[in-house]
Amino acid sequence: MLSLHMPTPERWLKQVEDHLDLLLIDHAHCEKKAAGVAMNLLFSYVEHAELTRAMTEIVQEELDHFHQVRAIIDRRGIRFYKLSPSAYGAKLHELVQKQEPQRAVDRLLVAGLIEARSCERFGLLRDRLADRELAEFYGSLFESEARHHSTYVRLAKNFLSEDAVRERLAELAEAEGRIIEFGEQQPRMHS
Amino acid sequence: MLSLHMPTPERWLKQVEDHLDLLLIDHAHCEKKAAGVAMNLLFSYVEHAELTRAMTEIVQEELDHFHQVRAIIDRRGIRFYKLSPSAYGAKLHELVQKQEPQRAVDRLLVAGLIEARSCERFGLLRDRLADRELAEFYGSLFESEARHHSTYVRLAKNFLSEDAVRERLAELAEAEGRIIEFGEQQPRMHS
Repeated sequence: MLSLHMPTPERWLKQVEDHLDLLLIDHAHCEKKAAGVAMNLLFSYVEHAELTRAMTEIVQEELDHFHQVRAIIDRRGIRFYKLSPSAYGAKLHELVQKQEPQRAVDRLLVAGLIEARSCERFGLLRDRLADRELAEFYGSLFESEARHHSTYVRLAKNFLSEDAVRERLAELAEAEGRIIEFGEQQPRMHS
Repeated sequence: MLSLHMPTPERWLKQVEDHLDLLLIDHAHCEKKAAGVAMNLLFSYVEHAELTRAMTEIVQEELDHFHQVRAIIDRRGIRFYKLSPSAYGAKLHELVQKQEPQRAVDRLLVAGLIEARSCERFGLLRDRLADRELAEFYGSLFESEARHHSTYVRLAKNFLSEDAVRERLAELAEAEGRIIEFGEQQPRMHS
């Protein structure tokens, strides 16, 4: 699905469904982080008009999602606080090459894979959560994550050939799959 | 005007009016930077709901302005490229204190002073530029910069008392005035 090399293991849903408050707090931070990643890409490739327009849209949508999650958190009376991120993002960013244009491609594809994984997990939460309000909320975010994934992969093709991008996406997706398989002890959106 | 301690010296307009292409390129980067500053504040004070909502609006407006400037640059057939920023922002950020909550107040007030100076200079460009298209463009941005200034000063009052904020704003505005008086060799929006 969406270039992902392996599906989310069944244990993830078990891990998070007893910690929905924590999942929501982590999710709000993930949306903030996703806006930050798009802003950083806009800064790095500011001469590239198509990229800056796409990043502007993603920044706006991710910040909008951040506020949507915050509203649910507030409505449920959950205290929102700073939370250390899962190791998932940092592990993926270690794979980013230093040299341009490979660096641009890797940064875009890593961002695209994170969107793909979020999309897949939002689908799981939509289909399987007993908490129907949250299930519907995650269903409502599904489409935009899939669209962001496609945007990132399309933009990567401005920096290297389609074949090179496809090949690198497969490599990174395999690495992403291994990170997901390894998992994390703390229940998080990307644990 | 808008807490500014001293008006822009007459030499600035002389410095930039012969370099409008460069001014536009620098201006686009300033709008990008302003969006980045608002995003950084959102990250630093993410638990603060009012601040995150205000920063989201500012991020969106500054990115919108960035694209408006880019459109003018493209229409005029000017090549857009990365440009080293003027020393103005860096000099102001040196004044930011390390300890919270003074740090939050300083970051907000410095951002507010930059908006005030931009607002003042947009007014000058509106009133004095012979290039009427640009004069009108700068006139159209005037109001949002003034509004952003007020937003930043208002938010600072969530971190320290009104009196403390007023006093610190006067100190920082005086320092900003000295930086502007000193000036810079390269023609820039904040030279």
